[in-house]
Amino acid sequence: MRTVDWHHDHIVIIDQTLLPHRVEMIALRTVDGVIDALQRLAVRGAPAIGVTGALAVAMAARTAGSDEQLRTDAARLRAARPTAVNLAWAVDRVMALAPHGAQRMLDEAVAMLDEDIATNRTLSHHGADWIERHVVARSVDGYVLHTHCNAGGLACVEWGTALGVVRALHERGRVAEVFVDETRPLLQGARLTAWELQQMGIPYRIVADGAAASIVARGLVDVAVVGADRITANGDVVNKIGTYPLALACARAGVPLMVAAPESTRDPRTATGAGVHIEERPEHEVLFAAGVRVAPDGAHAANPAFDVTPSDLVTVTVTETGAHEGTSR
Amino acid sequence: MRTVDWHHDHIVIIDQTLLPHRVEMIALRTVDGVIDALQRLAVRGAPAIGVTGALAVAMAARTAGSDEQLRTDAARLRAARPTAVNLAWAVDRVMALAPHGAQRMLDEAVAMLDEDIATNRTLSHHGADWIERHVVARSVDGYVLHTHCNAGGLACVEWGTALGVVRALHERGRVAEVFVDETRPLLQGARLTAWELQQMGIPYRIVADGAAASIVARGLVDVAVVGADRITANGDVVNKIGTYPLALACARAGVPLMVAAPESTRDPRTATGAGVHIEERPEHEVLFAAGVRVAPDGAHAANPAFDVTPSDLVTVTVTETGAHEGTSR
Repeated sequence: MRTVDWHHDHIVIIDQTLLPHRVEMIALRTVDGVIDALQRLAVRGAPAIGVTGALAVAMAARTAGSDEQLRTDAARLRAARPTAVNLAWAVDRVMALAPHGAQRMLDEAVAMLDEDIATNRTLSHHGADWIERHVVARSVDGYVLHTHCNAGGLACVEWGTALGVVRALHERGRVAEVFVDETRPLLQGARLTAWELQQMGIPYRIVADGAAASIVARGLVDVAVVGADRITANGDVVNKIGTYPLALACARAGVPLMVAAPESTRDPRTATGAGVHIEERPEHEVLFAAGVRVAPDGAHAANPAFDVTPSDLVTVTVTETGAHEGTSR
Repeated sequence: MRTVDWHHDHIVIIDQTLLPHRVEMIALRTVDGVIDALQRLAVRGAPAIGVTGALAVAMAARTAGSDEQLRTDAARLRAARPTAVNLAWAVDRVMALAPHGAQRMLDEAVAMLDEDIATNRTLSHHGADWIERHVVARSVDGYVLHTHCNAGGLACVEWGTALGVVRALHERGRVAEVFVDETRPLLQGARLTAWELQQMGIPYRIVADGAAASIVARGLVDVAVVGADRITANGDVVNKIGTYPLALACARAGVPLMVAAPESTRDPRTATGAGVHIEERPEHEVLFAAGVRVAPDGAHAANPAFDVTPSDLVTVTVTETGAHEGTSR
């Protein structure tokens, strides 16, 4: 089952806000509908929002009244989520074909669906290979991995990046257990990664985000694997809020930290993580948990959606081109 | 208003599980009732559970049928929460007076209520003094502080330890803002610390636990202040899960980390944090958020309630005896 797909004349996505309790597909037939789905995280994860943006601009080209209308739609899509670089990259890639017409744009966007799956499968096996070569599992049952947020099939078209590495190792019979950070405020770990691991039959335990560092410090983890929303020229990794403290704990404990992401995540035009606009999401995501208000009336929250892991904390980055120690290409 | 108090022949506590939405006092008239209140965190925070244990053993002495019964009750109270050293310390202190009779035990326990307030007030001013001497506020409005969990009046009889330091600075007009980690799974930051700060009129913002490290890394914080459940002989600090990643972030950013706790928190008989039994709490606290199930059916969780911050990450420890750089006495 694909997280994002094209059906005849519209986009179909799994509404990830309803998981794990309901698996429901929704149709997106307008640019406004796509932007809303992106912003409320019905579709999320850097690769998935990239292909969704690509399909959306192709869809817009079929109905746009003018070139100017199409350019406006593309700009609005591009800006729907500011931090992940894949969205802008994918929209631009399809828009570059606008002179060749709407059908050519759609062919390209649809090809990107298959390409995303192939890319992730390839990078996942590079990641699994690196782990088997460089990390000694402490359990006879295989590796104990730690992951944050959801960089699984749901974050992509299918298969996954960080969770794709876990999946590739699992196919080789080399996964003992996965620790999953719940990933507040929107609980993508507890809701989405847990659901994917359960589908794959991989044992896992969810932990509160504050517990991740000490789980690593206590020697319970062989290797941590996370995705990325953007990798800057110097190798800094922008990823879901909470990645940075996990990276700090890994560095102190001598546990390798692997970043798994397609090459399209690289942003060579931004020098360091300090130059990346970090999306600040609505306060209510923090003031509420699972739809219930937890903070007092009148409370305020800061809600940065991403953090920056400096390149010196990253042991290895795997992309479809291979395993790159450090984050340099 | 005291978090814990003695009324005629029973203990009265604020039921902290109902905050911030309801302020409700409950009476505890039996040892079983006290143990239940301690375990479901109706009363929590190392100093508060200490005095509650002291009052409970004095209450038990008034009704116990035999010395053996009293010793059994004291042992059960002592074991109700295994990590904080204050509980065992307080129970033992009152039990040592058993040969002098129940009234003498009660007098001692009641005296500990006042003593707790005086101790916390003293250590809080030591903390505020240290900050004013060693930290330059980047805002003209005063310091931006960061705290974790709740080490406020609710964690003590009143006044507080880490939040007591904030309160002492606020009385001097030197607090610009406080960042509060929400502190999953039970959200003591979002529920309790936020409520206390609001009562005191101190501006604050709640952040997801995963955001704490990057808030510090981005240079938004002048000093972090946390409480402690136990400080071992070498100065390792056992505190609410999520303290350790905040400490790692402070160390990397050069932001001072202050631990504020009474001398009774010290455990000179345990060499290092590795020797402390870390309470593992029920899985459902992680699998649910605010009473709503968030994880898939069949999911498992790990739920350590505390973590260990190695002494080298602690800039200064303040107790009623003064400010001690590092955690050594």
